[in-house]
Amino acid sequence: MIKLTAKPVIEKRRAQLAADTAAFKAKSGKTPHLSVVLVGEDPASRIYVANKSKAAELVGFTHKTILFPASATPTEVKAKIDALNRDPKVNGILVQRPLPKAYVESEVMFWVDPKKDVDCLHPENLGLVVAGQPRFVPCTPGGIMVMLEHYGYSVAKKVACVIGRSSIVGKPLAALLLNDNATIMQVHRSTQNPESVCRQADFVFVAAGAPRMLKKEWVKPGAVVIDVGIHRDETGKVFGDVDTDSVGEIPSALTPVPGGVGPMTIQVLLENTLRSAKLRS
Amino acid sequence: MIKLTAKPVIEKRRAQLAADTAAFKAKSGKTPHLSVVLVGEDPASRIYVANKSKAAELVGFTHKTILFPASATPTEVKAKIDALNRDPKVNGILVQRPLPKAYVESEVMFWVDPKKDVDCLHPENLGLVVAGQPRFVPCTPGGIMVMLEHYGYSVAKKVACVIGRSSIVGKPLAALLLNDNATIMQVHRSTQNPESVCRQADFVFVAAGAPRMLKKEWVKPGAVVIDVGIHRDETGKVFGDVDTDSVGEIPSALTPVPGGVGPMTIQVLLENTLRSAKLRS
Repeated sequence: MIKLTAKPVIEKRRAQLAADTAAFKAKSGKTPHLSVVLVGEDPASRIYVANKSKAAELVGFTHKTILFPASATPTEVKAKIDALNRDPKVNGILVQRPLPKAYVESEVMFWVDPKKDVDCLHPENLGLVVAGQPRFVPCTPGGIMVMLEHYGYSVAKKVACVIGRSSIVGKPLAALLLNDNATIMQVHRSTQNPESVCRQADFVFVAAGAPRMLKKEWVKPGAVVIDVGIHRDETGKVFGDVDTDSVGEIPSALTPVPGGVGPMTIQVLLENTLRSAKLRS
Repeated sequence: MIKLTAKPVIEKRRAQLAADTAAFKAKSGKTPHLSVVLVGEDPASRIYVANKSKAAELVGFTHKTILFPASATPTEVKAKIDALNRDPKVNGILVQRPLPKAYVESEVMFWVDPKKDVDCLHPENLGLVVAGQPRFVPCTPGGIMVMLEHYGYSVAKKVACVIGRSSIVGKPLAALLLNDNATIMQVHRSTQNPESVCRQADFVFVAAGAPRMLKKEWVKPGAVVIDVGIHRDETGKVFGDVDTDSVGEIPSALTPVPGGVGPMTIQVLLENTLRSAKLRS
């Protein structure tokens, strides 16, 4: 079984992105800029945001993190985002999730101008992805597609089973796979006998958010398994939605957790930001 | 085998809509208004538009059809739509398709204000449907869901196979079914052995746009089959994507063509228009 790791993919793509950014800067005289809005003190969010900032710097972008205390009202935060929407120097705006409880996701998703929504969470951008005319690529699903491409896989004419149906992963991922000519099977907690559905798939995408839920009964011998889950046990050990002991050598390839799908997300975010800068110049 | 016809569904829903409209008018002092934009002289489009106007009148809306010659430029038509977008008396705007070749669908879909887009074709509205937070319901997929509900079917925990993947039917239909807890299988021209996939389904939705393509090999005994196709032969006979001779009595229920899914579309359009009027008042 092959382990599909992010590292070589990111090394290659990041170098390419740095070169593309340098070329853009030379041609346009402008520097892509990413603004990150962080509300509250969640330690994991702080680390994610720091990683995004560091990566933005590495490829030659400017960036700024706007930090609000957890007590900041939605009105205050929205006013700041409105200002960023109007600022012609800002190409990408990312609002780090999760937000405090006072924030209603069905409202927040409209705040960032869809043309600066490099996280691809605005309904307009989700709709464009579904319609097969993406303005930006949703970060985690897009990272998965980049990884498959890097390792030489094509989903066209193959059966792809997506486990999960969140608006961030499961739904846009199924849309990208469909647009790439995969036959789609989408299963979730209401599915009867999900194992027998999943066992038909050449490509399995586990985005269930359930620790080690994917057992050997779900996997057709030779399938490619993409693990989108990320969990941590009491000892600090990080693992995914795949029960690696159970599936053993049944798949032909598997993305490890950590080091698989996760790190791809930031790469796509940065690619979206350069794309946004190019669209506006 | 039961024939699932639109007539009783529409009679019931239309009476309800007329009553809801009367109540809305009494309460708000406003009358829902639907504007239809028609470019060119396509006879079929003229009939569709006339049917929509007639139905709007029957439920108590006002309506207006704005007719442009086929030679009208996209700039002219867009300017008129901009004016309708700004007009507070206009609740719903529908641009009849197909448009002449000078019109680029990926641009036109942005023209109607998403809050007046009762045809549910703007990417923002498609995205909201996918996210499970619909502002409007896409007309044909929504009509199918209304029909299933009327006849007492629930897709929850069942396997639904969608044949086709257009942005108007296949994709939003799969989203509505998924949001109603169906397990989704989506097949299309690139699918290998689509019959064996489809034969697993409790509900089959044929939106392939291919005359009589669904044969008995595709249908599990007892499945409910929804035919979204509409075709006409040389003699003027109208038929669908289902080969009714081939499938015979294998399904437990089937929507006929004509008289099945087709007439539901206008009903949903009108329901969206009243919803739009309510959202704005």
